[in-house]
Amino acid sequence: MSDVANKILLIVLDGASDRPVGGKTPLSEAGMRNLDKLAYGGINGIMDTVGPGIRPGSDTSHLAILGYDPHTYYTGRGPFEAAGVGIDVKGGDIAFRVNFATVENGLVTDRRAGRISDTDELAKAINEKVKVPGVDIIFKRSTGHRAALVLRGKGLSAAITDTDPKKEGNPIKECHATDDTPEAKRTADIVNSISKQVVSLLDDMPVNQERRKQGLPPGNAILIRGAGEVPHIPQFQERYGLKGAVVAAAGLIIGIGKMCGLEYLPVGSMEIESSGSQAAAKMKKAIQALETYDFVLLNIKGADEAGHDGNFEKKTQFLGQADESFKDLLTLKDVLIIVTVDHSTPVSIKDHSADPVPILMHGPGVRMDDVAHYNELIAYKGGLHRIKGMDVMPIALDLINKTKKYGA
Amino acid sequence: MSDVANKILLIVLDGASDRPVGGKTPLSEAGMRNLDKLAYGGINGIMDTVGPGIRPGSDTSHLAILGYDPHTYYTGRGPFEAAGVGIDVKGGDIAFRVNFATVENGLVTDRRAGRISDTDELAKAINEKVKVPGVDIIFKRSTGHRAALVLRGKGLSAAITDTDPKKEGNPIKECHATDDTPEAKRTADIVNSISKQVVSLLDDMPVNQERRKQGLPPGNAILIRGAGEVPHIPQFQERYGLKGAVVAAAGLIIGIGKMCGLEYLPVGSMEIESSGSQAAAKMKKAIQALETYDFVLLNIKGADEAGHDGNFEKKTQFLGQADESFKDLLTLKDVLIIVTVDHSTPVSIKDHSADPVPILMHGPGVRMDDVAHYNELIAYKGGLHRIKGMDVMPIALDLINKTKKYGA
Repeated sequence: MSDVANKILLIVLDGASDRPVGGKTPLSEAGMRNLDKLAYGGINGIMDTVGPGIRPGSDTSHLAILGYDPHTYYTGRGPFEAAGVGIDVKGGDIAFRVNFATVENGLVTDRRAGRISDTDELAKAINEKVKVPGVDIIFKRSTGHRAALVLRGKGLSAAITDTDPKKEGNPIKECHATDDTPEAKRTADIVNSISKQVVSLLDDMPVNQERRKQGLPPGNAILIRGAGEVPHIPQFQERYGLKGAVVAAAGLIIGIGKMCGLEYLPVGSMEIESSGSQAAAKMKKAIQALETYDFVLLNIKGADEAGHDGNFEKKTQFLGQADESFKDLLTLKDVLIIVTVDHSTPVSIKDHSADPVPILMHGPGVRMDDVAHYNELIAYKGGLHRIKGMDVMPIALDLINKTKKYGA
Repeated sequence: MSDVANKILLIVLDGASDRPVGGKTPLSEAGMRNLDKLAYGGINGIMDTVGPGIRPGSDTSHLAILGYDPHTYYTGRGPFEAAGVGIDVKGGDIAFRVNFATVENGLVTDRRAGRISDTDELAKAINEKVKVPGVDIIFKRSTGHRAALVLRGKGLSAAITDTDPKKEGNPIKECHATDDTPEAKRTADIVNSISKQVVSLLDDMPVNQERRKQGLPPGNAILIRGAGEVPHIPQFQERYGLKGAVVAAAGLIIGIGKMCGLEYLPVGSMEIESSGSQAAAKMKKAIQALETYDFVLLNIKGADEAGHDGNFEKKTQFLGQADESFKDLLTLKDVLIIVTVDHSTPVSIKDHSADPVPILMHGPGVRMDDVAHYNELIAYKGGLHRIKGMDVMPIALDLINKTKKYGA
């Protein structure tokens, strides 16, 4: 092993940390044999990914860990959801979250169209056939009744209201500008035009005829909300001088990676991994990528899913299986390995929490500490103490000798 | 005990932490048996209530611990002293610190009127009889020669000078505006009118005739200083969605609690507690209040008093006695218990210092650490590491699952 690492592998065990139940957590119980070896040979600590007591989403936390202050670059859920469903959003785009809904006689009768999920054809029709002069309209389905809408072009603004009436029995709301600019007025007009076109386009489509036959509410309208301007994010290579890639299954993480200029490296199935073998395939991909890239972000999502399910055993089992794939890291050379978590997802609350996450750094030149296990209950004893998500990239860049000197 | 706490009990042992004398502090020597049990079963750390090296008052530190940045909400001593003596100040009021003084032949001969303390009648007279059209004048005595003055009404400003000549032998200073606004000019005129009215009002009052007989300087004038506009403080319930109360004996803490929208719950005598039994009465009140309120701030002041006296033994003894009342906390359920200190009051310096204070959090879901004692010498080894006063409420809200997610 040389004295200095020249590459960074940043592994995010999405939602892996927890609150103790009877003094135990999935990470403390999973038997993370390989990860424990990395902890033993590295430096450890706890981290507030955004800040103490701030309960982050995966989007805001990943931005922070990648060194992009979410208070600057996080412009609302629309842009990140659009990126998350695979739309290649660009800085300046106006992006929205969308629900498929049911409209009968001009009134919204179901805001989720009976939680419709067969929306492939509907989304395709909107994407291809809804037109407004002077603006590109990009529409893509997400999970269930959800979808994302992106407007691209000049003279647009996110200063507009939602069309969601919030309560059934009301018509779709007119979209209005919330400031006096012609851009906002124009964008509101575009949204209203899209709303109207969609109803006449979808109402008679085969999938909706079929749903009516089955007594299901048709997905014949869309509710548009959460307008946000896609941030102009400085690209990774320019910001850090590193050629970077992202290996992930979750659309949101892939989207954020792409927005930051990381190249997305797909791994077989796009499913969220629920087994160790899927995690292993990703790990293999990430390690391979280090031959070509200076920086690889690997997101492993399975533990977060189990946390949202409130399933301690499933979370523990997944982590134990995922640990197998960490074995290959033990022989890596010249790589700074960082293993952290984007936010805790305690099984007791089935959602994200602000409890600090564990972080370890392992590689040439790292000051080893006394911590010999990787979990949120003892990481606080390590040499990194308590850092912030925004500290990760500066510390990592310094450890691979890529920081500029401040002063003389 | 359920998985998640739903109430917060925030206990501030005012001024309890210290600097070591021969390696020992009052907290380390007091035998805090019950508090040690909370430390053992909780997570511990040290805290800069305002910031490293910033020596806080009880006002600025309590604001920070309650999540109100003192750099925003602390507008000078006037407003907080006025609140502290029990004036129900309102946002926009102009508040002042006041000294009773002695004027003879137009010159200030004693800036503290011989440290007069029988000011009840004098203050009452000022409060009832001094009038200026278009403004409400509220006057209340404080301890010794001190008092507070509040002006309430439209068109007022705090941009004015003090009337204190600073040196005996000079006349009371004219109050001047420090900016060009008509509001400042008007407020200066009001202050000057009050100054003049007070002298003719008080000079012949029985208490002053009596003082002259005894050869004591009469309290026949007031010196007005420290003008500050009472901040518009977002109320606790709106800010946090929690119904809150404050149990305290110190006027300043009660005042700050009220300004933040906490309901003040009086406990028998309003005296600063100097014995364990007084601390116990407050503890009982605070625990009872948890049946009605989501958040209770309990301030126990005795240790601070002993610190200001420079009395190691008295401080140690008080803390040991106060610890008895902590026994009742050990059986509390569903409550996040936080025990901290607003600032160190080292007996060696008889005043506040910026030395970090210990903090513990105890309750469902808290990640227990290895710390088994509650004192400022070992708290640094705990899982909270070193946090700031402004971190307390975000962390506490997250532990009772009351934070909004930032992102998705």
